[in-house]
Amino acid sequence: MSLLVVGTMAFDALETPFGKVDRIIGGSAMYIAWSASNFTKPIKQVSIIGGDFPEEEMTVLEKRGVQFEGVEVVPDGKSFFWSGRYHTDLNTRDTLVTDLNVLAQFNPQLPDSYQDCEFLMLGNLAPAVQISVINQLKTRPKLIVMDTMNYWMASALDDLKKVLTMVDVLMVNDSEARELSGEYSLVKAALKIQQMGPKYLIIKKGEHGALLFHSKQVFFAPALPLEEVFDPTGAGDTFAGGFIGHIARTRDISFNNMKTAIIVGSALASFCVEKFGPSRLKEITAKDIEERIEEFVDLVDFDISLV
Amino acid sequence: MSLLVVGTMAFDALETPFGKVDRIIGGSAMYIAWSASNFTKPIKQVSIIGGDFPEEEMTVLEKRGVQFEGVEVVPDGKSFFWSGRYHTDLNTRDTLVTDLNVLAQFNPQLPDSYQDCEFLMLGNLAPAVQISVINQLKTRPKLIVMDTMNYWMASALDDLKKVLTMVDVLMVNDSEARELSGEYSLVKAALKIQQMGPKYLIIKKGEHGALLFHSKQVFFAPALPLEEVFDPTGAGDTFAGGFIGHIARTRDISFNNMKTAIIVGSALASFCVEKFGPSRLKEITAKDIEERIEEFVDLVDFDISLV
Repeated sequence: MSLLVVGTMAFDALETPFGKVDRIIGGSAMYIAWSASNFTKPIKQVSIIGGDFPEEEMTVLEKRGVQFEGVEVVPDGKSFFWSGRYHTDLNTRDTLVTDLNVLAQFNPQLPDSYQDCEFLMLGNLAPAVQISVINQLKTRPKLIVMDTMNYWMASALDDLKKVLTMVDVLMVNDSEARELSGEYSLVKAALKIQQMGPKYLIIKKGEHGALLFHSKQVFFAPALPLEEVFDPTGAGDTFAGGFIGHIARTRDISFNNMKTAIIVGSALASFCVEKFGPSRLKEITAKDIEERIEEFVDLVDFDISLV
Repeated sequence: MSLLVVGTMAFDALETPFGKVDRIIGGSAMYIAWSASNFTKPIKQVSIIGGDFPEEEMTVLEKRGVQFEGVEVVPDGKSFFWSGRYHTDLNTRDTLVTDLNVLAQFNPQLPDSYQDCEFLMLGNLAPAVQISVINQLKTRPKLIVMDTMNYWMASALDDLKKVLTMVDVLMVNDSEARELSGEYSLVKAALKIQQMGPKYLIIKKGEHGALLFHSKQVFFAPALPLEEVFDPTGAGDTFAGGFIGHIARTRDISFNNMKTAIIVGSALASFCVEKFGPSRLKEITAKDIEERIEEFVDLVDFDISLV
């Protein structure tokens, strides 16, 4: 049984108030793989790359149990490229360049070896691609989690609504939840979005933490207040990777275990923002993760018995 | 021994996306009194009002243990008046009218009966007034908590810096913490502000919760995700009232008990926003408060033993 991850493998150029990089490894599937591989294997990637994508970036992940048979290589094509500049507050950014390159022709074909998928993580991609992957799986995974973004709400709403009916957990940020539901109150937004399909909704609020909604239940996980936030790129994907990685390791899809998974995801995301791109994720150890999770426990720990 | 509260007693005119009121009771000292009187008495108010302030608003609080000997009445004067309009997202507002009226001549004189003050809550007011009250107390209170706002950072920074050296706990919102410290990171801002005087810093983030900083310790309390937010006016003061009310009841000024006090304050604030002005605070019972606090416990409760 395996975790299947669908997403981009790409190059990013980034500008934050703290520095600039011209061409580093990025893409949702890369961040998810780096994060989830702390917890589970095998992880089977579905993506598309050009001949320019460095083989050593895959070799190092292969050692962590990540497989790339489902990644299409277009030898004379170029990998997806994204360039962005963050504003001073790091909460907002401008996209400078989006070169789809090989991503424009992405039509994933799942290898037979991927049919043992127990957990499916659909990174942010065209909803039609997400649907195609789900439809190719002969056995429905135990849990399907999807990420998406406002871009698809504007450009592919019908497809997006269709894939929503096929998944269990949706991850979006707060403004996307509001846009998708037409409700300002996140409580009302969560109820409406659950009616669209996903029984679980995770609303990511960046430095303000994350909310998990299921039926009338709600759980809130804080973000760790950080002294330095260097580069927010990939934090959402890293969160997703920690979430699905914990779920895949424990094979427990209860609401209670999803709460733990959100804390794990938040911990991983708090590392991601400390350096450019996935650099920090390449360094951290199991002990680092354990200590960081302990900080989350302390952060919200209070004794109400006095009341 | 008593809780002494310094603040405004006023009229407000409010416009939110959900309605409009022309003239309701407001002012920081009123919200604090309604909130804190759920937990402790006597509460001794220091304020100034005109002859137009309705006596019944004080009578009903007197029954809850609130005393008004230190409230100066200017019979032919008019009470402080503030009028504001909230934007659709309720996080931002425009001030339409600020009529200081009798507040312009506020020079508080503490009655002798107020010298038993054990806990002092300085609502948002001119720093010079806050200093004057502290200086009139012959015995230093066990804990001095102050609220302030960006207006005083721009118009009375020297006085503000002076009062900061005299208090134990400062409450501000996140943008004010950034403005006061010149630091974007709230962790860095908290360290700088602690060096200015207050050993404890509470950063209020509205719908995103609140942070308590002390030395290198940090605690995060979420805000309850609400289906309806009707009117945010007074939520910060209500939070302050719940915080100091719990501290005064337990007479425990440890970091651990401050964490509980922040949960209590957050619970009270979550009621405040449900109706215009202090209306909702006038209705709630001890049982309502207990149930609401239980919701906070559930909201952040997770079991990390699986990790």
